Amino acid sequence: MVNNICKNIQHVRLYKPLVWNITNQVVMNNTANALLAIGALPIMSHEKAEFEDLANIANVLVVNIGTMDDALFESTKIACSEISAIAKPWVLDPVGAGASKFRTSKALDLLKMRPTVVRGNASEIMALANAGISQSKGVDSYHHSSEALASGKFLADKFQTIVCISGAVDFIICGSEITSIKNGHQLMTQVTGLGCTATALIGAFVSVNDHFYEAAVTAVALLSVVGELAEKRASGPGTLQTNILDLLYSITEKEFLTNLKKDSYESA
Amino acid sequence: MVNNICKNIQHVRLYKPLVWNITNQVVMNNTANALLAIGALPIMSHEKAEFEDLANIANVLVVNIGTMDDALFESTKIACSEISAIAKPWVLDPVGAGASKFRTSKALDLLKMRPTVVRGNASEIMALANAGISQSKGVDSYHHSSEALASGKFLADKFQTIVCISGAVDFIICGSEITSIKNGHQLMTQVTGLGCTATALIGAFVSVNDHFYEAAVTAVALLSVVGELAEKRASGPGTLQTNILDLLYSITEKEFLTNLKKDSYESA
Amino acid sequence: MVNNICKNIQHVRLYKPLVWNITNQVVMNNTANALLAIGALPIMSHEKAEFEDLANIANVLVVNIGTMDDALFESTKIACSEISAIAKPWVLDPVGAGASKFRTSKALDLLKMRPTVVRGNASEIMALANAGISQSKGVDSYHHSSEALASGKFLADKFQTIVCISGAVDFIICGSEITSIKNGHQLMTQVTGLGCTATALIGAFVSVNDHFYEAAVTAVALLSVVGELAEKRASGPGTLQTNILDLLYSITEKEFLTNLKKDSYESA
Repeated sequence: MVNNICKNIQHVRLYKPLVWNITNQVVMNNTANALLAIGALPIMSHEKAEFEDLANIANVLVVNIGTMDDALFESTKIACSEISAIAKPWVLDPVGAGASKFRTSKALDLLKMRPTVVRGNASEIMALANAGISQSKGVDSYHHSSEALASGKFLADKFQTIVCISGAVDFIICGSEITSIKNGHQLMTQVTGLGCTATALIGAFVSVNDHFYEAAVTAVALLSVVGELAEKRASGPGTLQTNILDLLYSITEKEFLTNLKKDSYESA
Repeated sequence: MVNNICKNIQHVRLYKPLVWNITNQVVMNNTANALLAIGALPIMSHEKAEFEDLANIANVLVVNIGTMDDALFESTKIACSEISAIAKPWVLDPVGAGASKFRTSKALDLLKMRPTVVRGNASEIMALANAGISQSKGVDSYHHSSEALASGKFLADKFQTIVCISGAVDFIICGSEITSIKNGHQLMTQVTGLGCTATALIGAFVSVNDHFYEAAVTAVALLSVVGELAEKRASGPGTLQTNILDLLYSITEKEFLTNLKKDSYESA
Repeated sequence: MVNNICKNIQHVRLYKPLVWNITNQVVMNNTANALLAIGALPIMSHEKAEFEDLANIANVLVVNIGTMDDALFESTKIACSEISAIAKPWVLDPVGAGASKFRTSKALDLLKMRPTVVRGNASEIMALANAGISQSKGVDSYHHSSEALASGKFLADKFQTIVCISGAVDFIICGSEITSIKNGHQLMTQVTGLGCTATALIGAFVSVNDHFYEAAVTAVALLSVVGELAEKRASGPGTLQTNILDLLYSITEKEFLTNLKKDSYESA
C-alpha cells in the first residue's frame, strides 16, 4: 500500500479535485488552506439553491457539524442526499458528538445516511457507538484512540462505512481491516481544527481514488507525518499551523516514506 | 497578587477549562487557537437546542457581538440566562458598541444581564456608559483608555461587574480598585481580534479562579506581556499573530514576571 | 500614475478609512487582517438593523458572495442601496460566479446595482459576461486572465464600472483604458482568499481617492508586488500568507516601485 499512498498524493496534486465543504465557522479558513496546500480546490456553500449544481461539479462533499444549527442541519441532509444520489463520496466529521444530545443525535442522523468515511476523536466515536444502541450518555471525557477501537469497529460494521479515529495513534477501520498510524505530535492538539483538516483531506483523497480505505489511510498518514515534521521546526502552536500548511504543499515522497510509521492488520 | 497571577496561568494549563464561545465570525479561528494555546478547550455554538447541555459542561461562557444579528442576539440572551442560572461566570465583549445604535443597544441589554466581566476598548466603554444614562451618541472616535476610566467606573458600579478597558494602557476596574497594565505594543492594533482574544482569555481565567478581579487582571496582563514579547520577534502583523500563539503556549513564569508592568491603586 | 500610486498607499495609512465588509465566512479573518495591515479599519456586519448607521460612518462597502445564502443576499442588496444612496463607493467580488446558477444570477443582480469596481478571476468575469447576454453556461474551467479581457471590457461598458481580472497577469479595465500588472507568484493561488483580499484592498483605496481607476490599480498592484516579494521569503503557502500581512504593513515606496511591472494602454 505504501507505493499507492505516494501515488495518491500525486493524484490530488495532478487532478485538483473540487471539494465541497459544509463545515464549521471556526475552521473554514484553515480547511480551505489545507485543501489548497495539497493541490485540491475548496468550495464552501450552505445555500440549498445551489446544491444540485455543486453536487454536479464537486468531486466530493465534506460535512462537519462543529457549529451546526437546526436550519443548517436540514440543508446538510439535502446536500448528502444530492451527492449520494449521483454516487459521489462524502465524508462526515461529527465534531462534539457526545458534548450535547443535539450533536450526538444530528451526527447519528447523518451517519445513517451512510457517509463514505466518518472521522472523529475517540470520545466522538464512542459517543456515536453508544448512541447507536442506546440513549446518548452526554459528554465523554477524553479517551485514548485505542479505547475507541471497539466502538469504531461497531460503527464501521453497522453503517458499512470506513471509520477513522484520531489520537496519539490514528486508526482507520474498514471491515475487518485496521491500519494504525503512529505519527503526529502532542502539540497538534493545541491547534484548532486539525481534526477537521484531516476530514477535509480524507475528502480530497477519496475523490481521486475508488479504493476508499487506501485513500483514507493516505490522508490520515499525510497529515500525521506532516504534523510531526512541522513540529520539529515550530516554536509553538502558531508556527506549527503555518509549518503544516507549508509542508502539506512541499513534502516529498522520500520525506513522507522515511517518517511514516504505519501498521496494518486484521481485527479479531 | 503577582504570585497568584503565575498560579492562575498554571491553573488554566492544568485544569483545561471548557470555554463556550458565542462569538463573531471574524475571530472564531484565532479565539479558538488562543484558548488552546493557554491550555483551555474552546467550543463554539449558537444552536439553542444544545445550550442547556453546554451550560452544564462548560466552565464559562464568552459572548462577543462582533457580527451579531437579531436572531443570534435572541439566542445569546438565552445562553446568558442558562449559564447565570447555574451560577457560572460569563464575559461580554461589546464589539463596536457606539458604531451603531443596534450594537450599543444590544450590548447594553446584555450588560443588564450582569456579566462577570465586560471588556472593550475606550470608545466601546464610553458608548455604553453614555447609553446607560441617555441615548446613544452614535460612533465614537478613538480615545485613549485613560479617557474611558470614568465611564468604566460608572459601568462597574451600575452593573456590579468588572470592567476591562484595553488600550496602550489596559485598565481593570472592580469596585474602587483599579489595576493598570502598561505592556503591549502598538502593532497589536493591526492584528484583528486581539481584543476578542483578551475577552476569551478572561473567560478562561475566571472559570478557574473565584477571585474574578485577579483572574481578569491575569488574562489582560498575560496577553499584553505576550504581545510585547511577540512583537520583538515579529516583522509585521502576520508574524506577530503567529508569535502571540507561540508565546501564549510557551511563556515561562520568569519571562512573564520580568516584563510585567502592573500597578494597582484605589480610585477616588 | 506611479507617483500617485505611492501617494495612495500613504493616504490609506494616514486616513485609516473604515471599510464595511459583507463577506464570506472563509476569508473574514484574513480580510480583516489585510485591511488592518495597510492601515484601514475593517468592520463586518450583515444585520440590516445597523445598515443605515454603518453606511453613514463607513467610507466604503465591500460585498463578497463567497458563502452567500438567499437571506444574506436580500440584506446585501439593501446595504448596496444604502451606500449608493449617499454616493459612497462599493466594490463587488462575485466569488464562484459560473460555479452555480445561484451564484451567477446573484452576482449579476448585484452587478446591475452598479458597483464602483468588480473584481474576479477570469472564469468569474467570463461567466458574468456570458450570463449578461444569455443563460449561464454553468461552471467554467480555469482560464488565463487574458482570455477574459473581452468579457471584462463588455462588463465595464455595459455596467459602467471598473473591472479587475486577477490572474498571472492582472488587468484593470476602465472604459477604453487597460492597465496590466505582471507581478505576483503562482504560489498565491494556494492561499485561500487572496482574491478576496484584493477586493477588500480595492475598497480601501477607492474610499480615499476619487480617481477610482487609479485607486483600483494601486490596490491590485500593491497586493501583487507584496505577494511576489513575500514568496521569496516563504517555504510554502503558510508562510506566504504570514509574509503577505507583514509586507502589506511594512513595504516601502522604494521596494514597491523597484518591483512594479505595470503597463497601461488604450484598448482597440
